[in-house]
This record gives sequence, structure tokens and C-alpha cells, in this order.
Amino acid sequence: MSKITALSKEIETALQRKIDFKTKPIGSLGMLENIAIKIGRIQNTLTPKITAPSIVVFAGDHGITKSKKVSPYPQEVTQQMVFNFLNGGAAINVFCKQNKINLKIVDAGVNANFDENKELISAKIAKGTKDFSLEKAMTTLQCKAALEKGKEIVNNLFQNKCNTIGFGEMGIGNTSSAALLMSYFTKIGIENCVGKGTGLDNEGLQQKKNVLTEVYQKHIKNIDSPTEALATFGGFEIVMMAGAILEAAALKMTILIDGFIVTSALLAANAIDKNVLDYCIFTHSSGEQGHQKILDFLKVKPILNLGLRLGEGTGAAVALPIIQSATLFLNEMATFESANVSEA
Amino acid sequence: MSKITALSKEIETALQRKIDFKTKPIGSLGMLENIAIKIGRIQNTLTPKITAPSIVVFAGDHGITKSKKVSPYPQEVTQQMVFNFLNGGAAINVFCKQNKINLKIVDAGVNANFDENKELISAKIAKGTKDFSLEKAMTTLQCKAALEKGKEIVNNLFQNKCNTIGFGEMGIGNTSSAALLMSYFTKIGIENCVGKGTGLDNEGLQQKKNVLTEVYQKHIKNIDSPTEALATFGGFEIVMMAGAILEAAALKMTILIDGFIVTSALLAANAIDKNVLDYCIFTHSSGEQGHQKILDFLKVKPILNLGLRLGEGTGAAVALPIIQSATLFLNEMATFESANVSEA
Repeated sequence: MSKITALSKEIETALQRKIDFKTKPIGSLGMLENIAIKIGRIQNTLTPKITAPSIVVFAGDHGITKSKKVSPYPQEVTQQMVFNFLNGGAAINVFCKQNKINLKIVDAGVNANFDENKELISAKIAKGTKDFSLEKAMTTLQCKAALEKGKEIVNNLFQNKCNTIGFGEMGIGNTSSAALLMSYFTKIGIENCVGKGTGLDNEGLQQKKNVLTEVYQKHIKNIDSPTEALATFGGFEIVMMAGAILEAAALKMTILIDGFIVTSALLAANAIDKNVLDYCIFTHSSGEQGHQKILDFLKVKPILNLGLRLGEGTGAAVALPIIQSATLFLNEMATFESANVSEA
Repeated sequence: MSKITALSKEIETALQRKIDFKTKPIGSLGMLENIAIKIGRIQNTLTPKITAPSIVVFAGDHGITKSKKVSPYPQEVTQQMVFNFLNGGAAINVFCKQNKINLKIVDAGVNANFDENKELISAKIAKGTKDFSLEKAMTTLQCKAALEKGKEIVNNLFQNKCNTIGFGEMGIGNTSSAALLMSYFTKIGIENCVGKGTGLDNEGLQQKKNVLTEVYQKHIKNIDSPTEALATFGGFEIVMMAGAILEAAALKMTILIDGFIVTSALLAANAIDKNVLDYCIFTHSSGEQGHQKILDFLKVKPILNLGLRLGEGTGAAVALPIIQSATLFLNEMATFESANVSEA
């Protein structure tokens, strides 16, 4: 496991000083100032820059969707949406194109065979996880392989000058995995972690709560580590994201955390190495009910609160320009002295 | 006075239908969907586009700063910041450059003589307002001239293909004018409208409250119209923005409302013609304490809540990419049918 270095506080004072000399009232750029300081600390410089920003969307299928109605959509939608990503028709394509974000799609474990496609990174562990109402979602070996794959993918992007990375996901049924992981890592009761996902009605929500309460109770006594929690509750896309997040932090990249599923992967990464949080920027608070509870648990404040609950990394993609605004004001604004403006 | 047409509800259903066919769970783009519908209604089309987005920063000086300590900065900072805008060193320059926003600076009434400069629109009504602790900030004639100038400036931008416009301001002392206008138009007691502005301490805040309470009481009995409220409390930059906002709505432009000062100008515009609100998008909630109260009064929800309190139109500039995300997903995302994705 690569080691994640905790950020030093040393440069923080110098960054704050640089900000306070800019031609604006002290503190008047609010959260943009905090973001600028955070990225300056991550890059250990007074002139941080965002280079080759990328979003990686991991897709995977979930065995639970075969036996239980935990989503209003059929499992086939996962593979159909992968094709939609490859054809440029999904929301994440539109936002990445708009904001000049390099988009990568990863088959982490979709229940389909894809033809070779230079836009698709093949990292399939299996054609979907096992049904966790019956058994563990994956073997420990598969889980470790998924963590490794996630790291490898991030490392490749890092080699290509990417220093800022967001993650997204697609996987029908994956709010169920995320809710189970959330409950395990936050100790919030499973019934308070489950939400409507892509759009269950109240009856469907109650059924999902019943299913996941039973699943949680079935497995909890056998889980003795973060890796075992990931292996038990899945899915492949979530485990791969956890590995990717850990590697991004080890490489001192700025990590853009998206919504409910990504944040559940972060909870696992955080349990493995708590220094990971130093590298994370929380891009939004999702409309999925559990997400804000995780953000509260982590004691972090998100940039946006637009009620997005689409996944795919869309919150991270939409928030990127605001993060860029933070580094740009730090680098480009005049100082009181250089602009001959009187101070307070 | 140009007439502002209330938006028809007719196209709303067709816009919602178009959104619901996109490859995403119903409602899952949250507020981006509301913004897309709003702009579609303003432009009366299912394919709205943002063209030549512009921000106009109006600058003006305030007589009150000569006799009372209502700001920690000296009056000269207004003119110094105008030079900073013209030299590209202010926050608004950085964010407009980043987001490809056409930036215009207007001398609405700065207490300085500027050389001719193609970057500066000269619309000076006078070299600062009168001290409203002694008399009305401006004459009724000056107020009407400022309203007209604001309209003229917007009209020129509209002729140059701009259909989306934000406003910003610079004027040492102008949170005092804004607080007085806020109290007049919302009926919220003046002491609850006054805030720390660019950064008064608690003692300074109390002094500002005392000054403005006296000013409010001195004038209130003589004010019998929105125009008289503007003339009494000023400033030139605020009145010009009120005229600009009214004209932008009359021309069916999308109006990006920034923070406390701009929203105080909108309150006046709204009192003149309430249809103006149909054309406004509220870009952020300012750190200046009165702003969220105005947004609550208007029953509107802002896009961002980053604690910005810098003025200059910076909130509008930083929020523009999110507004563009809204029109882009509406225009560019695939439908379930075109992408062969199964529906719920």
C-alpha cells in the first residue's frame, strides 16, 4: 500500500498572506480562499495550477439486482449507459466537454462483453458481483485486484500530467452497496443510510430498507477490516474507486469527491489511511439522502448544493470551474501595492 | 418606461418533457433542470443558448463617506479600483477572463476625472452623490438620467448579440445605500439590513447602524415612489443598475443577479415592474448578512453559497459555467430512445 503523506501546515500561513495582499477585502472570496489554500498545500506551492483535469467513470454490475427490486431500472442499463458514455450522449460527457475535462470510462465489472474500444479501459474483475443477500459480493482476492486496478489507472493518468482527478460511477444497484458501506464505516443505522437512489417510490424505499437491513445483519459479524467490508458489500466500481482515491492521494493529486457512491468509496479509503482526506475537495451535496450525512460525519463542507443525484461524476465536473476560479484568483489578481490601491 | 412581458407558462411543459426524455433519472439534475427551464422560457425555445455573456460593473462614489465612517476604506479606493479593473488586476477581471465573459466598466459617478479609455464607459452623473445624512443623494432629474443611462448601456450590449447579462458594482460606502433601499422595499427594520460591508468590526457596525437609522428616519416621510427612494439613498451605480436590469428584462435577456448591492437595485426595479423577476437568475447568497434576507423576501433560491462578499459581479461571473451546464445538458444529452437505454 502506497503511503499517504499528511499535508504540512507550514505553507498555509504564506498562502493566507498572499491572499490577504490581493485587492479585495480580507476574507471576501469566502470558500474560494479555502479551496486555494487547500490546493496550494497539496501542491506545496504559492502558485498552484490545475493540469490535465480528469474524471474516471467506473462501471460495474451488482448481483443483488437479480433477486431483489432495489432499483427502478433493469441491470442492462449499466451496459447501455457505458455505450452512451462511449458515444458522448450522457450528462458526464456534456459537462466534461464543456469544462475541458479528460474523461475516461472503465469497465470494472459490467455484465456484458464489450468490443475493444480505445475510449474504454478494460479492467473487468467479473461480470457483476455476487448477490450479497446470499454471499459476499466478491472474494477477498477479487477485492484486492480491484483496489490494484484502481491504483494502476490513476497512476497512468498521473504519468500524463494529470494533477486533479474526479471519480464517477455507473452501476444499477450501487446505492445499495454504498448504503451498506456507509452504515459500516459511520455506524449510522442502515435504515438511515438507505435512500431512493435513481427514484424509488416510498414503498420501494421501504422494501430496499428491509432487504439491506437483512443483508447487513447477515454479514456484519464476519467483517473485520475495511477491505472485507468492500469485498462483502461491493461493487467492483466502488472498490476500484477506493483504490484510485488512495493512489491519487499518495501521488499528491487533488481529488474531486462527487456524490453518494464516490463518498462511500472514500469512507473505505479513509478507514485504510485517514491522511487521504487532506487531498479531497468535496464538490457537492447530493440529493440522495445519505450523502449529506456522510459529509457531516467527515466534518466537511461541499462546494455545491444543487440537488444533483445523477452520479457519473457529474457534480465534480460541474464544480471544476469554481475550483479553477480559486487557483486563478490566487495566481492572477493584483496586490494592493502593485495596483496602488489603499488598504483598510 | 419599456414594458416587461411576464413569461408564458406554455413552453414549460414541453421543456420539462424534453428534460425527462434525457438519459438520466427523472429530476436527477436538480437545480440545473430549473435553470434550463427558466432560460428556455425566457428565450421561448426548447434549445436556449447563452450568447456573448457580459458583466457590466458600475462604479460610483458616495457623499456619506465624507462625513461618516461607514466603511473601513477611504473613498479614493473607488477610483483606484476602477484603474485596477482597467488594468485587469481585480477579481472580476480574473473570473471574466476565465469564463469568457465580456466585461464592461462604467463610470456612473466616481469622484475623479478619467482620461479617455476605450475600456471605460463614461456615464458620469456627478462626482459622487450628496451626503444623505444632510440631503437627498441626488436630484430626481439625476436619478432619471441614471436610470436612462443604465438602459442605454444594456441596449448597446444587446445590439452586440448579448442575451445573458450580469451586473456588478464598485463604490466605497454602497452597502449603506443598499441597506437603506433594502429596508424601504422589504419593510425589514434598517438595523437588520445593515451589515459589515467590506469588513467593519462590531463597533464600526454599531456606528453604521446608528448613522443609517438616523438617515432612514430623516427621509422616509418624503419618499413616495421607487424612483424617489433611489434618488434619496443613491448611489449612481445602484440607480444605473436598476435601469439596466429593467431594460435587460424588457429585452428578454437572462439577468444574472449578484450580491447585496445588485439585489438592492433589483428591489427597486421590482417595485417599478414586478415582471422583472421572471428574467432573473440568482447566482449566489452573499456573506453580507442582509443578502440572504432579500433572497428570502423575494422567495428565490441562489445557485451558490460560498460566502463571497466582494461585489464587482464576482458571484455572477463564478456561477456562469453552472448556468451554461444547464443549457448544455438540455441541448446535447442523448434521449433514452436515441441511446437505446431502457427506462425505469
